[in-house]
Amino acid sequence: MTSPQPAETRTQKRSAQTATLAEIAREAGVSAPTVSKVLNGRADVAPSTRARVEELLRTHGYRRRRAESTRSPLIDLVFHELESAWAMEVIRGVENVARDAGLSVVLSESAGRLTPGRTWADQVAARRPHGVILVLSGLDESQRALLTSRSIPFVVMDPAGDPGADVPSIGATNWQGGLAATRHLVDLGHTRIGAISGPTRMMCSRARVDGYRAALETAGLPVDPGLIVTGDFHHEAGYRQGLELLRRPDRPTAVFAGNDLQALGLYEAARELGLRIPHDLSVVGFDDLPVARWVGPPLTTVRQPLMEMAEAAARLVLDLGREDRSSTATRVELATSLEVRSSTAPPREGRDVAG
Amino acid sequence: MTSPQPAETRTQKRSAQTATLAEIAREAGVSAPTVSKVLNGRADVAPSTRARVEELLRTHGYRRRRAESTRSPLIDLVFHELESAWAMEVIRGVENVARDAGLSVVLSESAGRLTPGRTWADQVAARRPHGVILVLSGLDESQRALLTSRSIPFVVMDPAGDPGADVPSIGATNWQGGLAATRHLVDLGHTRIGAISGPTRMMCSRARVDGYRAALETAGLPVDPGLIVTGDFHHEAGYRQGLELLRRPDRPTAVFAGNDLQALGLYEAARELGLRIPHDLSVVGFDDLPVARWVGPPLTTVRQPLMEMAEAAARLVLDLGREDRSSTATRVELATSLEVRSSTAPPREGRDVAG
Repeated sequence: MTSPQPAETRTQKRSAQTATLAEIAREAGVSAPTVSKVLNGRADVAPSTRARVEELLRTHGYRRRRAESTRSPLIDLVFHELESAWAMEVIRGVENVARDAGLSVVLSESAGRLTPGRTWADQVAARRPHGVILVLSGLDESQRALLTSRSIPFVVMDPAGDPGADVPSIGATNWQGGLAATRHLVDLGHTRIGAISGPTRMMCSRARVDGYRAALETAGLPVDPGLIVTGDFHHEAGYRQGLELLRRPDRPTAVFAGNDLQALGLYEAARELGLRIPHDLSVVGFDDLPVARWVGPPLTTVRQPLMEMAEAAARLVLDLGREDRSSTATRVELATSLEVRSSTAPPREGRDVAG
Repeated sequence: MTSPQPAETRTQKRSAQTATLAEIAREAGVSAPTVSKVLNGRADVAPSTRARVEELLRTHGYRRRRAESTRSPLIDLVFHELESAWAMEVIRGVENVARDAGLSVVLSESAGRLTPGRTWADQVAARRPHGVILVLSGLDESQRALLTSRSIPFVVMDPAGDPGADVPSIGATNWQGGLAATRHLVDLGHTRIGAISGPTRMMCSRARVDGYRAALETAGLPVDPGLIVTGDFHHEAGYRQGLELLRRPDRPTAVFAGNDLQALGLYEAARELGLRIPHDLSVVGFDDLPVARWVGPPLTTVRQPLMEMAEAAARLVLDLGREDRSSTATRVELATSLEVRSSTAPPREGRDVAG
């Protein structure tokens, strides 16, 4: 989906990374220790000096030499928001790898904004972690420059936006997952299949719904834009958008709910309208949170290996920080798989078309 | 439940806290900078020297003078285990307070053991956080001594064991919650009420079941030990122990499930046996996790204000670290409340006694 960065640009960047700390200091008109202080995120530097030094670090593409000994035994883990139940799976995965490596995990929340605040970047520079993992959250240019100049590696997990071709990332096969979910419903005989998308600013939402569309089109079924509604990946949105879909005179006999929480919201909407799952409505989720197995009926869903993805992200970021790094793949998508449970069934005879 | 520490002991401890760093060094036969290194968790001290210094710090009750400036902008949050869904609520609460105070949260898991490992304590000493919050997890004597000598305050949230009268802690009114849950079932007309306890080594489990017993006894109902089974607060235990309870010839018409996850396991057991909730079986949980509202039928449960408890713990630990600390209450229990939803109803007529 992204065009890779032209090779020339990369080469230019690399050849520019030759300025020494002393040269930066000279150009900024400050002492070398002052530049060090800025690099270490120390508070005792005037804001204007700090800004000047940061700007020179950025334009020169300065990269601090990696020094294992000066790093703190920490990994930074930054969430877009901690509310979602699947954050726990991610935390566990990162915690597993961190523990084995003798590191602790520093948790931050970017509080719903898609890039963490400036203060956060300063704190990270000051505490010098082994690496930074961003979950559904990106970095702006200056934050990337700040981490790069300190040689603090970072990895984006399940990119919400389009992180750029040179940003290491771990994702899941969202498009394939949307395809598999919808094909399952088509194979059961459904022809009117709705979808509740996640927020459209997140690439993973778009990929899932594109997979849904591809399944319908390759099966020769029409894609009805009226059957595609947009939520925000939370339970409440699944409930509200679910009510909207199910109150249509030509309501769908099956819905791909975008994620598990929206699927649970849809369950509630169906209950409220007296529709039984799967007899009157088939539902497929996405994520396979623990709760998917516990609800009644247990939810058919696309399993996203969240814990394994988080483990892969943690291993990748630690590897990026090593002088003798082994891995070359810095954009990885782990496979999703369909878990068929009891929330899907063939449509009831004679009810396939009618409302 | 614990007898408070005698006043004399406390006074003795306090008066012994007069040894200076130089005196500790002299007695240990090392230089003062070496003692500093030990206090700062630096690695370049021989293990035997380190042990000798730690022992002297402990016996002299040494307390480092609080120095705001040398602290890292961190709060340590330690979980017994991260698996449980309610860990997320706690993380969010601590994160809220930390963010407002400009601090980041370091997350650790004691991996199922009830006290975090020795390495953890060393890491905490080295990173000098503003404070430590332990969730369902205690500290052993040497870990407490280590934190105390570094003047790193700590608070235990929802104590699993018995933390000792002088350990600051935040809990919930577990006994009152068990009482309210069971009284609700008694008031509906149930007379055969089962209970699934959490692990008996956790005080909160015991308190809840004691509340259950008190409700039965004060209602003049017999307490049948055969109707009290023990789980581990996870879904699977609720399912297995639930099956055991429900397969009894004299099965209960209602069950207090100990927590929400066990209640969801019990839902599954009931589904498997063809018992409808609440028609054939009433269920009450404990915690009020978000999922309690989403399951079918929505779960009647005892709300434990987890996020508020975590916020209170974070505020308390930050307050304990201030020279001019204001709060005096260091053992707090926040109130629980019964949330009546759709999983409880009067027992069906004529089925009250029979299996």
